[in-house]
Amino acid sequence: MLDQVYLNGAYLAASEAHLHVSDLSILRGYGVFDYFRVINGKPRFITDHLDRFRQSAAGLELDLPLGGAELGEVIQEVIDRNGPSTGGIRTILTGGYAGDGYTPQQPNLLVLPYTFTPPAPTYYAAGCTVMLHEYERQLPRVKSIDYLEGIRIQPLLRERSAQYPLYVDRRGCVRESDRSNFMIVVDGRLITPVDDVLLGITRRHLLRLAGQLGIPFEERDVTVEELLAADEAIICSSIKGAMPITRVDDQLIGGGDAGAITRQLMEAWREYA
Amino acid sequence: MLDQVYLNGAYLAASEAHLHVSDLSILRGYGVFDYFRVINGKPRFITDHLDRFRQSAAGLELDLPLGGAELGEVIQEVIDRNGPSTGGIRTILTGGYAGDGYTPQQPNLLVLPYTFTPPAPTYYAAGCTVMLHEYERQLPRVKSIDYLEGIRIQPLLRERSAQYPLYVDRRGCVRESDRSNFMIVVDGRLITPVDDVLLGITRRHLLRLAGQLGIPFEERDVTVEELLAADEAIICSSIKGAMPITRVDDQLIGGGDAGAITRQLMEAWREYA
Repeated sequence: MLDQVYLNGAYLAASEAHLHVSDLSILRGYGVFDYFRVINGKPRFITDHLDRFRQSAAGLELDLPLGGAELGEVIQEVIDRNGPSTGGIRTILTGGYAGDGYTPQQPNLLVLPYTFTPPAPTYYAAGCTVMLHEYERQLPRVKSIDYLEGIRIQPLLRERSAQYPLYVDRRGCVRESDRSNFMIVVDGRLITPVDDVLLGITRRHLLRLAGQLGIPFEERDVTVEELLAADEAIICSSIKGAMPITRVDDQLIGGGDAGAITRQLMEAWREYA
Repeated sequence: MLDQVYLNGAYLAASEAHLHVSDLSILRGYGVFDYFRVINGKPRFITDHLDRFRQSAAGLELDLPLGGAELGEVIQEVIDRNGPSTGGIRTILTGGYAGDGYTPQQPNLLVLPYTFTPPAPTYYAAGCTVMLHEYERQLPRVKSIDYLEGIRIQPLLRERSAQYPLYVDRRGCVRESDRSNFMIVVDGRLITPVDDVLLGITRRHLLRLAGQLGIPFEERDVTVEELLAADEAIICSSIKGAMPITRVDDQLIGGGDAGAITRQLMEAWREYA
């Protein structure tokens, strides 16, 4: 975390940024957040991210205390105070200080700045390995702070030499990763789930980019079988951009190399973003 | 919250009890807790609760920094410092301060004292109303801090004039409430689910008590149909003890009155606890 943060109307040193232990995030895991990249001092896709942040808050019946323009100004101020090392911003809205330990109160709003370290270049060149894992996120459209499963299975990922999980639902459909969306390419066509997933901002812009590049795409469920038989597979997020998936558990995808459409999207994403 | 709390080796005023915003409970909802009653200055069923607290921690790959005896001493000290108004203790173990926002570190341990206000007497005399709600807790054996759904549906409960939810799984079985276990009585026999529920300490002691009273009991799944046709239904927790359920959504249970076995267990619980 960088040095200057925002908490409930005040700018303060990160070392001073605390929440009282009666906050509902600490007592009950109750809160939402968003994260976006900052490039050359400007937040990227800020309108998309703040819209989603507000929708996530509404999903938990929490009210954002600032309007979009005001929150945008706060974010820019945090970026400016921390200077050019600011590479990402996390906004958090918690359930607030609950006397009864259960009823949401005036939410606590945080804006936290971070440096940015991109994933290792090898994962773009050679692709990453994902582990299939049976799990369904609760409230999938809400970017809540619930990462119990994603964090709990990190040791399992390391054991399996995988970088990321892919969550598979009870019907055998692949939905998303713990912090990323997911796409496949079949016969030159990009396919990505839309139901019961977090609607990622990078996902949305990659689809827009695919449209501009003349790559046909579909938003629909993807089964495990389709993934394993796919020509290419992609994992995407604000942190990763578009990254090739070249292995699913023990099985290679696309012969183990990043495919042509994935490389086209990675290239286009670099210029676009 | 009462005035004297414990945090990571120190006793301090509740107003001073904060966690830094890099804690994984705030960033990622990652933590476990337990709660138990304190009666006449003594924690109730402390061994059961501390065993479960340690098991919950292990379920999230978190290590309790104190052994059972040491933690017991800390808890007694917190009780003694707060005096006779101490009616309940919450222990919390979070994922700790995570520089990368995702990897658990040295956990933060909290012991928080509360006064105790029992549920309104009417809910024991006339019984409470529950609302059936489709939901499955993740990691049901772990008392994690994840209460996203329980808190999110509180307005819905009020709308329906229900006091508590009963979670129904995808197969139509009733599992538990948001902060309580659940039992029915059919033909003089107590039945309560055991799979995919939090193993409540009050639940365990009520079953023991049933055994002593010669009430036969079974631990097995209970369908919604069985609940609606049951002679009696009970919701139970450390806070509630045993409380009759006399209405499920719009349907009365047992004619709308607390049944004989429920009253017998409520009575016995009062003496036992």
